[in-house]
Amino acid sequence: MQVATQHFRTIWPDARCKFVEIIDQTKLPFTFEIARIESLEQMMHAIKTMQVRGAPLIGVAAAYGLALAMLHDDSDDYLQQASQELISTRPTAVNLRWAVQRMHTHLHALQPQQRNFAAWKEAAKIAEEDVAQNQLIGQHGFELIKKLYKDKQFNILTHCNAGWLATVDFGTALSPIFVAHDAGLNVHVYVSETRPRNQGAALTAWELAQHGVPHTVITDNAAGHLMQQGLVDMVIVGADRVTTNGDVCNKIGTYLKALAAHDNNIPFYAAVPTPTIDWNISNHNEIEIEHRHGDEVAYLQGLSADGSVQSVRVIPKESQAANPAFDVTPARLVTGIITEKGVFAPNALKNCK
Amino acid sequence: MQVATQHFRTIWPDARCKFVEIIDQTKLPFTFEIARIESLEQMMHAIKTMQVRGAPLIGVAAAYGLALAMLHDDSDDYLQQASQELISTRPTAVNLRWAVQRMHTHLHALQPQQRNFAAWKEAAKIAEEDVAQNQLIGQHGFELIKKLYKDKQFNILTHCNAGWLATVDFGTALSPIFVAHDAGLNVHVYVSETRPRNQGAALTAWELAQHGVPHTVITDNAAGHLMQQGLVDMVIVGADRVTTNGDVCNKIGTYLKALAAHDNNIPFYAAVPTPTIDWNISNHNEIEIEHRHGDEVAYLQGLSADGSVQSVRVIPKESQAANPAFDVTPARLVTGIITEKGVFAPNALKNCK
Repeated sequence: MQVATQHFRTIWPDARCKFVEIIDQTKLPFTFEIARIESLEQMMHAIKTMQVRGAPLIGVAAAYGLALAMLHDDSDDYLQQASQELISTRPTAVNLRWAVQRMHTHLHALQPQQRNFAAWKEAAKIAEEDVAQNQLIGQHGFELIKKLYKDKQFNILTHCNAGWLATVDFGTALSPIFVAHDAGLNVHVYVSETRPRNQGAALTAWELAQHGVPHTVITDNAAGHLMQQGLVDMVIVGADRVTTNGDVCNKIGTYLKALAAHDNNIPFYAAVPTPTIDWNISNHNEIEIEHRHGDEVAYLQGLSADGSVQSVRVIPKESQAANPAFDVTPARLVTGIITEKGVFAPNALKNCK
Repeated sequence: MQVATQHFRTIWPDARCKFVEIIDQTKLPFTFEIARIESLEQMMHAIKTMQVRGAPLIGVAAAYGLALAMLHDDSDDYLQQASQELISTRPTAVNLRWAVQRMHTHLHALQPQQRNFAAWKEAAKIAEEDVAQNQLIGQHGFELIKKLYKDKQFNILTHCNAGWLATVDFGTALSPIFVAHDAGLNVHVYVSETRPRNQGAALTAWELAQHGVPHTVITDNAAGHLMQQGLVDMVIVGADRVTTNGDVCNKIGTYLKALAAHDNNIPFYAAVPTPTIDWNISNHNEIEIEHRHGDEVAYLQGLSADGSVQSVRVIPKESQAANPAFDVTPARLVTGIITEKGVFAPNALKNCK
């Protein structure tokens, strides 16, 4: 995707496979910074602190994390240990586990001295697959938009960031929007802020602005009212894990948007590459919901009048905050799942296996 | 209510009826400041900028605004003009219009020279009625809590601030909570942040902390998940206007909480003094929803590391924001309306007229 006039991905290996570079997403939208990741430990830190985030991207980041690990020590033990540590960095998004397990299976079958080279190659393959999947999601989602489009401003609401920043490139939920915009359709995006970490206000708005897609930032609270007023034609979100029966686990607050969409007969879609589908579970209660530190609610980062990025406390010093990071939208509220293999009703998801 | 060891109301007249003092709510929770209001213009500014806010409180503030106006000019023309200007300051909360119309009717029937004295007296009467109504709301709501209470932590979720800061004293939605806490019940409050102006995080959390009521601040997004997890026993909110058929217009985001409460069989109550009921309308589409400036979404105020209160920008400079300030929760999602006259099902609200 474009940043100003330059093409970027969110993550890429050094040409000599000695380190990885990432866009540091904790700095956006105010500063565009590239961070160099030179070790497994640095990659785990980047995943935990959300310098890289988004289900597909943290899968790829973890794959490169294993490549960095193999640079350091290509033994069975270390492969096992590094895999476990990577999986533990963030519990909810299934792509991370999926990518690490794929890497582990692939590397474990090889001789240790073959692992370093193979790890970089497999990680790059996972990255390329992600790009290809997201392009296909863009096409399938675009077909849906075209069907609903009525030659006037078409308003799509999205939550959190499921754009190219959440993937290697193109994005999941935003991929169809970029395609529709590029095809000349009059699409406008309502970007819900997505407290507490403001991925909507900080990342989705920034991405859409870079690409020139008309958009309006709203508070998470405003989504229901806009739908009641007929100002939303379609909702598209990403997901961190989808169960086999079509329950969608995604960024906290998604469930509330889905309830409002359902109450106002607005189609609600989740756009996910198939590695986001957890074929092992049908019961969403088996998904571990990550609880992050309350300080992410208590403090908020923004640009101060002097141009510096500041963190400010927004709750009284006597008060505590709770911070569940994801919720589950039951399949009954989901119109369809947009995957690289096509669009599936939640109860027909097994057909895309 | 108590602030540290001192009793405060949110608004009070000078003993000689020359000016009014208010708690400046734009400074909370970081600074407790009293502001002196000496003219109609200053009162309109205080209402518009939300130094005073909350449907019952802006009714009383507007009444005192007319008293300040009569100090300046007690003519028919100015009474009419001041009344119109006050009503136009904020369009959604009906208490403001109700209080101004009551004052206007009362004062217009008098000789101009009688108006100044009568205005201060009538404003004080409206303030006292508000206090008495809220105490009764506390008692009626407490009866509801007692019925649902099961000798373990009882979790009440509230949105925005409908505490004593939203009224002259005691509050509406928080009034039953203060009564239950003081009666020794183990109540804990989930305080939804309430973007964009954070009245939950800034005001409700502060009030509850001052009173020693256990509470946890959450993002607005987290409300649905907590309800899905069985962590919310009851929802109580205030309202800015209730229609005769029981539709509840309240701070933006209330509708989303109500949808989630309904989806999880959690009782959802609005606590309102009867001046919040608009007996003129049954169709909520007749309610004018205030749209405030997008900068309230784009900028956020908090305490910086150096102890100063700073405003930071949280969206990219290229992006715009929309800011509808209220939404409507349809009566079908409302379990009951708690008023000073008792608790009414939405479809039985006319019985409290």
